[in-house]
Amino acid sequence: MLHLKSESQARWLRQVDENLDEILIDHAHCEHKAAATAMSLLGAYVDCEELTREMAVIIAEELEHFQMVLDLLKRRGIAFRKIRPGDYGRRLNMLVRSNEPDRAVDRLLIAGLIEARSCERFKLLKDHIQDVELADFYGSLFESEARHHSSYVRLARRFQDLERVKARLEELALAEAAIIETGHPLPRMHS
Amino acid sequence: MLHLKSESQARWLRQVDENLDEILIDHAHCEHKAAATAMSLLGAYVDCEELTREMAVIIAEELEHFQMVLDLLKRRGIAFRKIRPGDYGRRLNMLVRSNEPDRAVDRLLIAGLIEARSCERFKLLKDHIQDVELADFYGSLFESEARHHSSYVRLARRFQDLERVKARLEELALAEAAIIETGHPLPRMHS
Repeated sequence: MLHLKSESQARWLRQVDENLDEILIDHAHCEHKAAATAMSLLGAYVDCEELTREMAVIIAEELEHFQMVLDLLKRRGIAFRKIRPGDYGRRLNMLVRSNEPDRAVDRLLIAGLIEARSCERFKLLKDHIQDVELADFYGSLFESEARHHSSYVRLARRFQDLERVKARLEELALAEAAIIETGHPLPRMHS
Repeated sequence: MLHLKSESQARWLRQVDENLDEILIDHAHCEHKAAATAMSLLGAYVDCEELTREMAVIIAEELEHFQMVLDLLKRRGIAFRKIRPGDYGRRLNMLVRSNEPDRAVDRLLIAGLIEARSCERFKLLKDHIQDVELADFYGSLFESEARHHSSYVRLARRFQDLERVKARLEELALAEAAIIETGHPLPRMHS
């Protein structure tokens, strides 16, 4: 359902266990970046009504999650701060083709794959983390990320026919799995 | 209260009367741009908790207004489309100083002045337009724009002392009034 081509490995869960605070801080940044991505797509395709309506919903939800993670950090006495990002988003965004409508399709599908990977990892965190508050928190976020994934893939089909979107999603999902396979030394939500 | 240094002139109301559809389309774009500006500020100062919370509220409200204007256009059979922007925003943004915290102060105060001008013009539209639905609509938006103005000015004080913020607001308000005085041949919400 999520179109992912790989499952996260034990290596990532070790990063989580050893650097939980930093993963939580990165999670807050991820929620902000997800909202900013949706805002950027809204601006780029402002005359596509279906897209603007769905982006407005996603932006509101991501910003709500952002505040929820900030509240969680505060309750745990973890200072929120800027941190160096991993290279997951940058490497994915390098795959965006320049010409329309390919560009729109790629931006939407990549946004969808990032939501899918978040979804997969939230599920893993829910099952892995002993801390009940955190496990419940990730359980509660799981569903909306899956919904956002579906919205992005559906919107891509507004810009190009089903066959081409499916083929491109297959290519991008393989590339995403390869980036996840490489991993990143910094402990991040998508390392 | 709104810190504006001028009132809009009859010239602008003539543009409104002669190009109401285009003004309404521009209004939708303005709401989107206001949301995008708040998102950009949130990203730039993501570690300032008060700012991120207020920006999240403003983004949600501006996007709600954006949808309200799109609905209004639809009811009136006006096709929403991309249009060439006026130069109000561009000319104001040229005044932003480069170094922090001046940059933060300028970005916040300029965002606040744009909200103030929208507020002043919504009030004018409310009193000027014969169409009851439209007059009511602008009456309903007036209040939130005034609130956003106050939020931006208050946030600027988080980055610099009151005296310097007041002095800079005075300078920027004079510059804003001069840009409005010049006007723009394209009929726009801020022409």
